[in-house]
Amino acid sequence: MREVFRNELDDLATQLVGMSAKVLDAIRLANQSLHSNDLELAEQVIEADSVIDNMQFTLDQQAAEMLALQAPVAADLRAVIGSLRMSASLERMGDLARHIAQQVRIRYPESAIPEVFASTFARMGESGEKIAEATQSLLSNPGLADVPTINAIDEELDELHLSVFGKLGEAPAGSLAPRHIADVTLLSRYYERFGDHAVSVSQKVEYLLTGNWEPYLSKK
Amino acid sequence: MREVFRNELDDLATQLVGMSAKVLDAIRLANQSLHSNDLELAEQVIEADSVIDNMQFTLDQQAAEMLALQAPVAADLRAVIGSLRMSASLERMGDLARHIAQQVRIRYPESAIPEVFASTFARMGESGEKIAEATQSLLSNPGLADVPTINAIDEELDELHLSVFGKLGEAPAGSLAPRHIADVTLLSRYYERFGDHAVSVSQKVEYLLTGNWEPYLSKK
Repeated sequence: MREVFRNELDDLATQLVGMSAKVLDAIRLANQSLHSNDLELAEQVIEADSVIDNMQFTLDQQAAEMLALQAPVAADLRAVIGSLRMSASLERMGDLARHIAQQVRIRYPESAIPEVFASTFARMGESGEKIAEATQSLLSNPGLADVPTINAIDEELDELHLSVFGKLGEAPAGSLAPRHIADVTLLSRYYERFGDHAVSVSQKVEYLLTGNWEPYLSKK
Repeated sequence: MREVFRNELDDLATQLVGMSAKVLDAIRLANQSLHSNDLELAEQVIEADSVIDNMQFTLDQQAAEMLALQAPVAADLRAVIGSLRMSASLERMGDLARHIAQQVRIRYPESAIPEVFASTFARMGESGEKIAEATQSLLSNPGLADVPTINAIDEELDELHLSVFGKLGEAPAGSLAPRHIADVTLLSRYYERFGDHAVSVSQKVEYLLTGNWEPYLSKK
């Protein structure tokens, strides 16, 4: 029984790694579609999101079965519930990548990012990819080595998000079409949220490894 | 044992109703702070959000204990896991009300909504309150009578959200400051997300009552 449970827990962990890999793909392709204004790629990201949704569904089903059949307690129980929560965060990251691609599609053939914001969104895209990579690494490897990286990139994303509003405020009146300002605001928010969800995953991992409730309580 | 479990499940349900009541309060006050540009009220909403966070924490702790100690199966298990998910959605609705209040605080003493958007956001505020009321009613009463209401208001919110972008597109260039366009875009997104979370709660309730996975699979 115990060994069965360990194997199933390993399987949940493998599924989370698989989800995080798909999320990383989605963010990479969404970035690419945004920066090269590639409608076909955007469509691809939008379609592929259902794969991540299905992975969450499968993982959650399996976690529910484990709870039902094995009735885990203490650390084992926390691991299963933690997996449910992490799969929800990863699924949301997939949704956000889809939202970015949808923004590309809505604005096509025009670009969703005005030229003056190109460099900011290039950096946001990079940070989005890096935080998804760190999340995948955290879920793939033992230990908490990736946690400080994730926190640092989350701060980068927060600063970039703020800088977007600074830049919008400085823009000469009428220099940006309202729809561009709206696009930029939403896109910036989506990238900023990648950070929050990655931090949320890392806090769950940290909690599972250390039993420390603090980060869970202080979550945003 | 069985009776203990039923009592605890009732207690979870009561806690969800309590959370939904706090969420409704938060949305009402956030609306009021937005429409009367009331900084004090905004501060109040921001502070009160920790109450909702703590309610989620308590509920989740209790649900985890139930899973550990009682090892529920089948419908009982689904009810406990469903409660965890519903508390997460309600907590996010609280966050969104806080975000609205934060937007009021950031822009104060200026109003966060330009005059031309006042009527749209009055309607969004109303729909936000109505969907929170329907969510509370759904969680308080047996049956699924509130589900169609929740779906209808969610559609209203989606349409209002789209109408904001239409209005932004029609605004004469330079007639709105970029920061106002950014504010309006974010605020509109927050209201639109109230709808998504309420639908998510109603789909869980529907699933628990009917065992129908469809709405769960087709979730946004």
